[in-house]
Amino acid sequence: MGLVVQKYGGSSVADAESIKRVARRITETVNSGNEVVVVVSAMGDSTDELTDLAKGVSPNPPARELDMLLTAGERISMALLAMAIADLGLHARSYTGSQAGVITDGSHGSAKIIDVTPGRIQEAIGKGHIPIVAGFQGVSADSKDVTTLGRGGSDTTAVALAAALHADVCEIYTDVDGVFTVDPRIVPRARLVPVITYEEMLELSAHGAKILHLRCVEYARRSSIPIRVRSSFSNHVGTLVTSDKEAARLLAETSEGDTVEQAIISGVASDMAEAKITIVGVPDEPGIAASVFETLADAGVNLDMIVQNVSSAGQTDITFTLPMADGARALAALEGRRDGIQFASLKYDDAIGKVSLVGAGMRSYPGVSAVTFRALAEAGINVEMISTSEIRISIVTRAQDALRATQVLHTAFGLDSDGEAVVYAGTGR
Amino acid sequence: MGLVVQKYGGSSVADAESIKRVARRITETVNSGNEVVVVVSAMGDSTDELTDLAKGVSPNPPARELDMLLTAGERISMALLAMAIADLGLHARSYTGSQAGVITDGSHGSAKIIDVTPGRIQEAIGKGHIPIVAGFQGVSADSKDVTTLGRGGSDTTAVALAAALHADVCEIYTDVDGVFTVDPRIVPRARLVPVITYEEMLELSAHGAKILHLRCVEYARRSSIPIRVRSSFSNHVGTLVTSDKEAARLLAETSEGDTVEQAIISGVASDMAEAKITIVGVPDEPGIAASVFETLADAGVNLDMIVQNVSSAGQTDITFTLPMADGARALAALEGRRDGIQFASLKYDDAIGKVSLVGAGMRSYPGVSAVTFRALAEAGINVEMISTSEIRISIVTRAQDALRATQVLHTAFGLDSDGEAVVYAGTGR
Repeated sequence: MGLVVQKYGGSSVADAESIKRVARRITETVNSGNEVVVVVSAMGDSTDELTDLAKGVSPNPPARELDMLLTAGERISMALLAMAIADLGLHARSYTGSQAGVITDGSHGSAKIIDVTPGRIQEAIGKGHIPIVAGFQGVSADSKDVTTLGRGGSDTTAVALAAALHADVCEIYTDVDGVFTVDPRIVPRARLVPVITYEEMLELSAHGAKILHLRCVEYARRSSIPIRVRSSFSNHVGTLVTSDKEAARLLAETSEGDTVEQAIISGVASDMAEAKITIVGVPDEPGIAASVFETLADAGVNLDMIVQNVSSAGQTDITFTLPMADGARALAALEGRRDGIQFASLKYDDAIGKVSLVGAGMRSYPGVSAVTFRALAEAGINVEMISTSEIRISIVTRAQDALRATQVLHTAFGLDSDGEAVVYAGTGR
Repeated sequence: MGLVVQKYGGSSVADAESIKRVARRITETVNSGNEVVVVVSAMGDSTDELTDLAKGVSPNPPARELDMLLTAGERISMALLAMAIADLGLHARSYTGSQAGVITDGSHGSAKIIDVTPGRIQEAIGKGHIPIVAGFQGVSADSKDVTTLGRGGSDTTAVALAAALHADVCEIYTDVDGVFTVDPRIVPRARLVPVITYEEMLELSAHGAKILHLRCVEYARRSSIPIRVRSSFSNHVGTLVTSDKEAARLLAETSEGDTVEQAIISGVASDMAEAKITIVGVPDEPGIAASVFETLADAGVNLDMIVQNVSSAGQTDITFTLPMADGARALAALEGRRDGIQFASLKYDDAIGKVSLVGAGMRSYPGVSAVTFRALAEAGINVEMISTSEIRISIVTRAQDALRATQVLHTAFGLDSDGEAVVYAGTGR
């Protein structure tokens, strides 16, 4: 008994059959005595199809109009889902982001939620209706124009709505059974993680795990909304993403009095979409690094790892990683400031891979680095860069070594399951 | 120089190329010094495709959700059109029916416009932007839910917006050059009508001409908004639909001092979608006919022509025509009142056709009926029912005779052009 926000992604509503299956699941949740609010993405590939239509009329469409266009996608899926639920005898009513009170800033294509005023949704719940809310979209507070939230937007809508409605849990339905210790497509002996903390999930999302978007996890942590990641194609309970404290409590409960040791590593993430830039021959003077990073920040480049090599002869090299997509922009920005920064040359390398180990257990286990480098050395994999946080260690390797490094580390930390992970994929997306 | 509302139908925006052509036309109108507000329908067959999606999840989808679904169609076309205009260097901004202030009643699927509050559109015009408004849709005054206007809805949106904005003209773009004296697919020697009165257009629309929907013409007459019907595939000036007075003035202007006689007949319309019901053996008593028509009105049946035969032996037959689609409902309603009305039997016949001659010139020309029946008699076509208004004469024939009757009458009233009508059809819709 409780208020549950359920979010279904594009692959869960890709066609009429999938929509009917989701409708049955929602109906079952309601019939078990819960109040349910649904957030839904656009059907399957429909967002890509709409984007292609836009390319057909303009090489560079205005962002406001692109948002107007793309929001047609959830409009279609939410209306169809409401119809499918009505067909099962319950009252469902669809609401656009605007109607659901998802208020955003005016950044078309990557708007941020600044408030959620779900008056119509609460009213619908009060009448015993099932509100079906369009994910990914909102309305700009200033211009009253329709906005989209950018990547991972529907998950964020679900968590934001769950927070505004004080829901008991936000269920994110996808096409895999939950959060795995590693992407099962890379390591088939991946293990499903029953409980993970917000902090661990944030680190995994930030370093290449595709299952939940960073913004959504951040929002959930800030609002203390537990997220359950599960599959719309199976009945597996999935993975609960929650606070340190609650995770510890659940772990103690599971072990029923026995002492269990928390796993050192909760997951291994790999990211093949990063590139590395080295600024060669930078004067080793105070303020130069600041001017480099100001230049990159002004160009809107998101830096990840940063390494400054030991200085020799008054010069130093600065190396950093960044999303491949930002590569050209970063190079242009740096070239434009060559006279100010006074570097000798730029090196760009996108044949790298990043592997990250994440685990709250690292805090109390000092030997993680040792195990990591021993395992990689035995596999003959060279480490090019290293960066760490309190609960994460990331390494950069050659691209062709990254997946093997992922497998090796998954095994080294005892994460391999006995059998292959069961992954229910509907459309394979 | 003026404020022009331009409405483009689905065939005018069926694909990327069509959308770009429409964008060029809008841009040209603006560059000629006009302010332009655009109303657009969903692309080509997209409304049918959305309807099919709905059928895939529910045999009988709730009307509210069907409206939510269908309104995705114009959302897509209007955003794409705004993008295409932006690509030509002008500022265009798309608005949903709700954003454009199209306020309706709550009848999902056939909502009526009760007010238009185009504040955002006026603001956009003031900034020199080109507003692109979704046709066919509005927002319910009471529930704030999205509604659709039903058939001919986009034309009605355009006229209603033109009225609210005090536009100089409402241009309805379609895939033919304008209003013809007869459907050129039936009579290739149809003639384009340069000017027609609201009343004539209403009669033509009400009796089978498909070019403009009745509601839109009624709205235009009530608001004194001239409509220009023209093709988005040619530069022909098309047909102006306007008041009696303005039509007479334009006619006088055209003739440059010469006396010209107004055409007696402006157009011939045929309607193959009607059926005929005869209630046989009704008691010839006061109040019986009233009870028949009350029964039909309660069942929501739209009657067209009504004929009561001469009474004999205290009994009479009542015959009326109605849309075929209402046939089953009408028969059921009458059967349900058989005891009250005390008729002997019901006859249903949908193998009929209706041909209507419309012309304001009829008022001053008493010989129309004579010419009509002489022409039909010479062609060996039997007339089963007749009804007339001040500016219209309609006859019912066997279905297989109706198209020939149309051709014969078009010729008899001297409407045949010298050559074949040039009809520019894009997608042939």
